[in-house]
Order: sequence, then structure tokens, then C-alpha cells
Amino acid sequence: MHRPNLDEFELIARYLAPLARGESGAFGLLDDAAILDIVPGQRLVATADALIEGVHFFPGDPPELIGRKLLRVNLSDLAAMGAVPFAYLLTMALRDEATADWVEAFARGLGVDQKIFSVTLIGGDTTATNGPIALSATALGYVSLNGGLRRSGARAGDRVFVSGTIGDGAMGLKVLTKKLRGLGKDDRDYLKHRFRLPEPRVALGQRLQGIASAAIDVSDGLAGDLGHICVASGVGAVIEVARVPLSAAARHAVGTDPQLLETVVAGGDDYEMLFMAPADRTDEIVTVASESGVPVTEIGSVEIGQGVTLLGKDGSPIELESHGYKHF
Amino acid sequence: MHRPNLDEFELIARYLAPLARGESGAFGLLDDAAILDIVPGQRLVATADALIEGVHFFPGDPPELIGRKLLRVNLSDLAAMGAVPFAYLLTMALRDEATADWVEAFARGLGVDQKIFSVTLIGGDTTATNGPIALSATALGYVSLNGGLRRSGARAGDRVFVSGTIGDGAMGLKVLTKKLRGLGKDDRDYLKHRFRLPEPRVALGQRLQGIASAAIDVSDGLAGDLGHICVASGVGAVIEVARVPLSAAARHAVGTDPQLLETVVAGGDDYEMLFMAPADRTDEIVTVASESGVPVTEIGSVEIGQGVTLLGKDGSPIELESHGYKHF
Repeated sequence: MHRPNLDEFELIARYLAPLARGESGAFGLLDDAAILDIVPGQRLVATADALIEGVHFFPGDPPELIGRKLLRVNLSDLAAMGAVPFAYLLTMALRDEATADWVEAFARGLGVDQKIFSVTLIGGDTTATNGPIALSATALGYVSLNGGLRRSGARAGDRVFVSGTIGDGAMGLKVLTKKLRGLGKDDRDYLKHRFRLPEPRVALGQRLQGIASAAIDVSDGLAGDLGHICVASGVGAVIEVARVPLSAAARHAVGTDPQLLETVVAGGDDYEMLFMAPADRTDEIVTVASESGVPVTEIGSVEIGQGVTLLGKDGSPIELESHGYKHF
Repeated sequence: MHRPNLDEFELIARYLAPLARGESGAFGLLDDAAILDIVPGQRLVATADALIEGVHFFPGDPPELIGRKLLRVNLSDLAAMGAVPFAYLLTMALRDEATADWVEAFARGLGVDQKIFSVTLIGGDTTATNGPIALSATALGYVSLNGGLRRSGARAGDRVFVSGTIGDGAMGLKVLTKKLRGLGKDDRDYLKHRFRLPEPRVALGQRLQGIASAAIDVSDGLAGDLGHICVASGVGAVIEVARVPLSAAARHAVGTDPQLLETVVAGGDDYEMLFMAPADRTDEIVTVASESGVPVTEIGSVEIGQGVTLLGKDGSPIELESHGYKHF
């Protein structure tokens, strides 16, 4: 029905097929589906996420970073399961006016991250739309038969940990949508970059297998995602808000507007690992964090009960207006 | 950023999680990813397709059929590989005004087809959009170590076969967009239904393993998809247009406007199987077609050379304006 400027088959051949060279079972994206071998003793891990223009990224955003974020939000889900990523499928709905430059840059971004995370494009679909660019990816990984991390294993007495820093993603979105002002250019750039290019904690997730009792990636917000763990595990959790690790830029932002602590705790798009482990595994976690090159911070504990309690500096509970970011 | 009327988590819990009950490794859609066992001796087959409102379906189309078509276009790709489908992931971008009724009907359609095709929802993503509904699915199947069908095995001398009838999908789209008039209501309804609810030839594809030399599903159009086979196999092909099987409705349409033969040959969205086999395997194909409950018709042959030649009733070549439908 649509005949845009870019020919579908040419686009696939020129920009996407080179991304499939690492996997012979992708057949150069020339067949109806990919055929892959799963090594005996491994279990397949699969997840899918979509990014929509105007919702998850904006017209004019660098296409390299859009491609990389699409891949990374999926890899972050695999990281939370402790999986080793190996392949992904991609669907793209583009408008007629999509340019070869845009697609080339988008694919270049994917290529950069394919090298970093050792994954290969194995299939997908390219189609037209009259509306916002709509992207989706399905990421495939594996865990060993006895491996993997789940949301459901947290037990009362476990300690609660997060990787990296929390709140940067949501603050970066506020900077991009001009809802966060008063910061210097370096801080603004840092937060925007954190929103646009999250760091999926793939190596950390793999190493936490057998140590962490439960894990999730922080995509809906720290409080919301901890709430998911609590529901899945049948427990409650307490976070000491002052222990939540902040980047220098986020600290500056909270310094000018203390209300932004709510963004830290309830905002989304961090793609850091949130996980629990028995207190006697803390030394191992320090080792694993060091080996993975990712800072890990203890921020609270798992309790008998239900729901997430946030404690302020004086030890009294804090009430939030919203307990998590809902994508939809 | 978006807070539509439907809560994301409620939508997943109420309408999507029931679709995941058949696979314990989907964790009730409550974890970051699914974990699946691949039986030793099986290879994983993976494919992804997107459907966009205004391009592949229309506002006001029955949501049950949209859900089923999304699943079926993916299953058709697995069928073309000879794979046994077992699971799929789903991403949905919906507008704020999406209603629970729409999602309920969409999920109901998926549920109907899950039973028919023995597949289970194992994961995905639900998000917001300001534009057309954007859907994608990744379908997973398996083939045995020595199984599977490919596009690249056609050899000169092979016969060319198609399943079912050709041209209904493209004519159905013409009826829906009021570009095909003069047909009776029964014919119009039949063609619309064929566009909206294709029949992926899953059982036929599986049975053709070891018999067919090459296969593809007809999504870009008979001539275009045969062209893909020719490129992948390094051969040419000849089709006798008069042998291409037509439904009664398509025959009526071509009877009133012979130009519509071009729609038959170059139109898309049939999702029938197009495959090749050595002439001495014809008896087996008749048996397999009968066992699968799908009519199969011989329409031409594979030749030394390249490209697709269409022969008219008098045996002379026909030129088409376009040799296939391009989605994009």
C-alpha cells in the first residue's frame, strides 16, 4: 500500500543484513525465519520491549542512540534473569520520509552495541507507518539448567542492593522535556545521556546467579520495581532513601529541589539492577561488583509483610504520591 | 509519561497473563523474561513481524481478527521453515483511548488461535503511543536437527506448487479500501475474511520436510516471493498463470475485470505456501496435501537461469507492471 522512498529489500540488504553476519542461522536475513542451535544444558531466555517515538524517544534524537537503547532495554531484562544474551530480532515501522541516513545511523548504533554485548541480529520485519516510529526487539539469551535469577526468591532478612546510580534516567527525561531547569550544562548532558543510553548490567546479572535471592531491572522506578519483587516473593521491603546512590548530577538536582527525591525513588528508565541477597553473602556481592566493574550499594532490607516502605533520614516513613512509573 | 485509562499492569494481569498459563516458564508474565527448555535434538526457529494500524489493518477492524492475524502472519513464516510453533512474544503500543473491550477482544482472538496452533504467550511489552496502534510478535518454533525448509534449495527441473488459492488477500484489501467493486456480498465478505484471517499452512510445512527442495510463504505476492526463491536458489522459474488456483470469489472478480490477474500474481497477503520439489516427488506431495487437509496445485517449473517468467494461456510471456508487493 505504501511505497516510501526507501526500498524495503534494499534497506534490509544494505543496513540490516551486515548486522546478521555473526550468525549463519540468520541466513543473511534472506529466509522466513532464523534457525539456531541451543547448546544442551542451556535454557532459552526470551524477552521483548517496544520503543515508540514521542513516548520513549523524541523526533530529532540521535538515531544511533535510539537503536542502542532499543537493544539495551531488552538486554537489561536478560541481565535481570542472569542470562547470557546471544541474539535479537527487530521490527521497525518507519514513515515514508524516513531517510537512508537515519536508518544507517540507527543500524550503526546497533552494530556498536552488538560488539559490546556479543549479540547478533537474526531476523525481524521492516514496515511502513503513517505515525510515530514504532520499534520493537526480542532479545534471546541463555542460562544454565540450574542458573537464572527470578523475582520470586526474596526472603525476610535479605539485604536490598542496587547497581550504579538511581534517578538519572527519569531526571534525564525531565531535562529533555524541559521540566528540570537550573542545572549546569555538564549535569544536563550527563542526565540526558543516561536516559538515552542506559547500561544494562549483563555481566553483573550473570555473576549474581547463586548469590542473589531475587532480581529485577529498574525500569518502572525503584519503588515500583521493588514492589514487583515484594509481590512475586510474598514479602515487604524497607528502603533508606538516604542510602540510594545518586550521581553527582542527580545530587546537584536534588540539592536545588529536594522534591526531586521523589523522581529518584519513583521515576523510571534507570535500567540498573535491583536485587536481594542474604546478609551473609555481602562479601561475595562486593567481589562480584568489583569483577563486573559496577558499583553496588546496599539500600535496605526485606521484611515479613508486604509493600515497600521508604524511610527518611530521621528513620520515619515517607509517603510518595506515586509509587512507580507506569509505561501505559 | 502517559497515564491512559487502562492500567498497564491490570491489562497484563487480566487479559494477557491468562494467555501464558500453558507455559510455566512464562512465569505468568510477572518476571523480566521467560525461561524455556529446548529439547535436545531440536533447533530453535525464530521470526518477527509487525502489524501497523492504517497499513496492515484499519481502525474499526474487529480486534479479535487483528490479534489472530498478528499471530498468523508469524506462524506462516514458521510454516515456511517447516517448524513446529510453540510460543510467541507480543508488543502492543496503544493509544490513551484504548478500551478494555478492545483489548479483551484482541486477547480473545489470540486465545482462540493459541488453541488451534498449540502456542502460548510467553512475554512482551505493553506501552503507549500517540499514533496508530503498533503491534509486533516474535514466534518461536522448532525443527529437528536434520529438518527445516529453506528458500535456497530449488533446482532446475523441480516443479512449483502452491497451497490453497492465490490472490484472495490482495483482493480482500481492495474490497476493504473500496478499490474493487461489482462483486456480490458473499464474494466481498469471503475476500475480506481471507485478508483479515489468513491460514498459515503449519501442518503442510512440517510434512513437506524431506520432500520439498525450497519453500516460502506468499506474503509479498506470488511473483515476488517466487523471485526471492530464485535469488536464494540461483535459478529461474516459470509460472503458467492459468494454473494458479483461484477461489470462486477471485474467479468472479477476474471475470468482471481481467486486469485483476495482475493482483493475483503480484498482490500480497496470501500466506499460502509456495514450494518446489523434484517431479518424482509429486505423489508424495499429493499424499501430504491430503493429510494436511490443504489443496496443493502445481503451477510451473524451476529452470536454469534467473528471474520469474509468467506464461499466458497461449504460452507467451506476460509482462507485469510490478513484480511483487513491497511492504515498505
